[in-house]
Amino acid sequence: MPESAPWITYRPELKVLDCTLRDGGLVNAHQFSDDFARKVYETGVAAGIDYLEVGYKNAPRLFDPQRFGPLRHCDEAYLHKLFGDHDPEKTGLKLAAMADAGKSDWKTQIVPRGESVLDVIRVACYAHQISEAAEMIRFAHDLGYETTCNIMAISVVSETEIDQALEVIRDTPADTVVVVDSFGALYREQIDNLVRKYQHALEGTGKEIGIHAHNNLQLAFANTIEAIILGCNRADATLAGLGRGAGNCPTEILVGFLRNPKYRQRPIIEFLQKELPAIRERLEWGPLLPYNITGQMNTHPRAAIEWLESDERDDVVAFYDKIVADI
Amino acid sequence: MPESAPWITYRPELKVLDCTLRDGGLVNAHQFSDDFARKVYETGVAAGIDYLEVGYKNAPRLFDPQRFGPLRHCDEAYLHKLFGDHDPEKTGLKLAAMADAGKSDWKTQIVPRGESVLDVIRVACYAHQISEAAEMIRFAHDLGYETTCNIMAISVVSETEIDQALEVIRDTPADTVVVVDSFGALYREQIDNLVRKYQHALEGTGKEIGIHAHNNLQLAFANTIEAIILGCNRADATLAGLGRGAGNCPTEILVGFLRNPKYRQRPIIEFLQKELPAIRERLEWGPLLPYNITGQMNTHPRAAIEWLESDERDDVVAFYDKIVADI
Repeated sequence: MPESAPWITYRPELKVLDCTLRDGGLVNAHQFSDDFARKVYETGVAAGIDYLEVGYKNAPRLFDPQRFGPLRHCDEAYLHKLFGDHDPEKTGLKLAAMADAGKSDWKTQIVPRGESVLDVIRVACYAHQISEAAEMIRFAHDLGYETTCNIMAISVVSETEIDQALEVIRDTPADTVVVVDSFGALYREQIDNLVRKYQHALEGTGKEIGIHAHNNLQLAFANTIEAIILGCNRADATLAGLGRGAGNCPTEILVGFLRNPKYRQRPIIEFLQKELPAIRERLEWGPLLPYNITGQMNTHPRAAIEWLESDERDDVVAFYDKIVADI
Repeated sequence: MPESAPWITYRPELKVLDCTLRDGGLVNAHQFSDDFARKVYETGVAAGIDYLEVGYKNAPRLFDPQRFGPLRHCDEAYLHKLFGDHDPEKTGLKLAAMADAGKSDWKTQIVPRGESVLDVIRVACYAHQISEAAEMIRFAHDLGYETTCNIMAISVVSETEIDQALEVIRDTPADTVVVVDSFGALYREQIDNLVRKYQHALEGTGKEIGIHAHNNLQLAFANTIEAIILGCNRADATLAGLGRGAGNCPTEILVGFLRNPKYRQRPIIEFLQKELPAIRERLEWGPLLPYNITGQMNTHPRAAIEWLESDERDDVVAFYDKIVADI
């Protein structure tokens, strides 16, 4: 029988990271207008969001500036133009950018913190790239940034490899290690096992554990709550769940769930009311049937994205048959 | 550390009830064509669904047959016309109808099982109607039906009242008691507490516990899994989540999750591909922002439904302010 009702209280150490501009940029090649990016920032500040991830520090040589918008590269001059007035002390909000192992010219793209508006560098990698990720984390840490390690596609990595990766990360100065369900494939008990594994591996280091969930099975918010219940203190979300494929945990639902009075849901609703109709007209994301299928098959949503962009998009049965045959 | 991976095995006693025609009928006043109802039935059979709930046994005096389709009343002649060939032995599927306490002329509307195509009567009630529900359950049981008790809107009922209601139901012949989150307001730990409460109250009776979740907070599937993990053996779902307001746990996602090889997802995908576009054109449901808000405020979705039907539907900020002021 219930002894307490923790869902009406809160942990002050629990912090929200909104990655609308970063993860959402995977839907539109980061072709966001300056005005839109600025509105997301202002919404984050007004809503009491703790971290705002604005894009990638990925290499222009790999992501052609003719095709990809400036937040794919997060050039410092551009960031200064957008967020030159940024003051984390005043707003309580820190700015973050992500750098992908293998895709970032991080030694030149990441500059000393004093020269940047960024406060946090999030390093993303696949398990086999963990050694480069560790170097990147040390590099960014030494330049003065708060850092995280986001090991992606964790649902297809063996437990032995996860253990090994966590051992490597344990010795880095990463402040947070994020459980990343890139395929939106994990069920509650799997989230539990992973969170406990990360907690066990990082015990005594003071590192926080984060959760980054995708919505292929309509579980992004649920799995985020689950990780929070188990003690994760960093939760990723995006406005309206905007993000590649099925999208993410919606910031508006997460903030409405958290009981810390510092969070305010109304500015987010205001943003969504003004901006969402135009975005929905241009971009498609959310837990559509093809994403349900790739999630359940524990594969990258790429096949579903391509199918939905093809002339066959409405023939979901053919997509199902293809995936069943392919895996 | 994980000792087992129950998510890749299954419990044979776990059964799925599809209530697309019953709960979905709350979106369109049960104005389904015979052809559509028949297709839902055939999809259920092909997918290995255990129970199909086809509508309500509610009184025509309250639900005018000029306005409400025949599945609001489930007249036996009509059911025979639709499902005259129904054979639960052959298909493995049982047909169910719901009767609401206070809204059903159950003494005349429910006929002996031998005269009906129905196998199951599900009795729905609010907590204060539990005594009439108990009479209805006994009546239907004596006529030969399998019976359930669905106590609705449980998120606004005090624990003492729930205990009292369960004490009453414990003494009835109800085969299943369903945890019903009518407002889609419950979070994981609340589901846990309720399921444990029901289990404790009904221990030793052999009654099964069911789960009926709504999707206001994108938690319908997650809360359904949660109840299943805790031992519930009856799970309600609807095709594409079709249901009042934010809708329900989607049958296609639930069936894709369950590992019992008797369930087949492909016929459901086929149904959705053929039927969903036309339904989506006419009807609106799903976890839209106004439903997120009523879910988080733990109120009936009625206010959101009315708002979405009004000229002000796009002014979600005004809706938020209204709900904040009203509660």
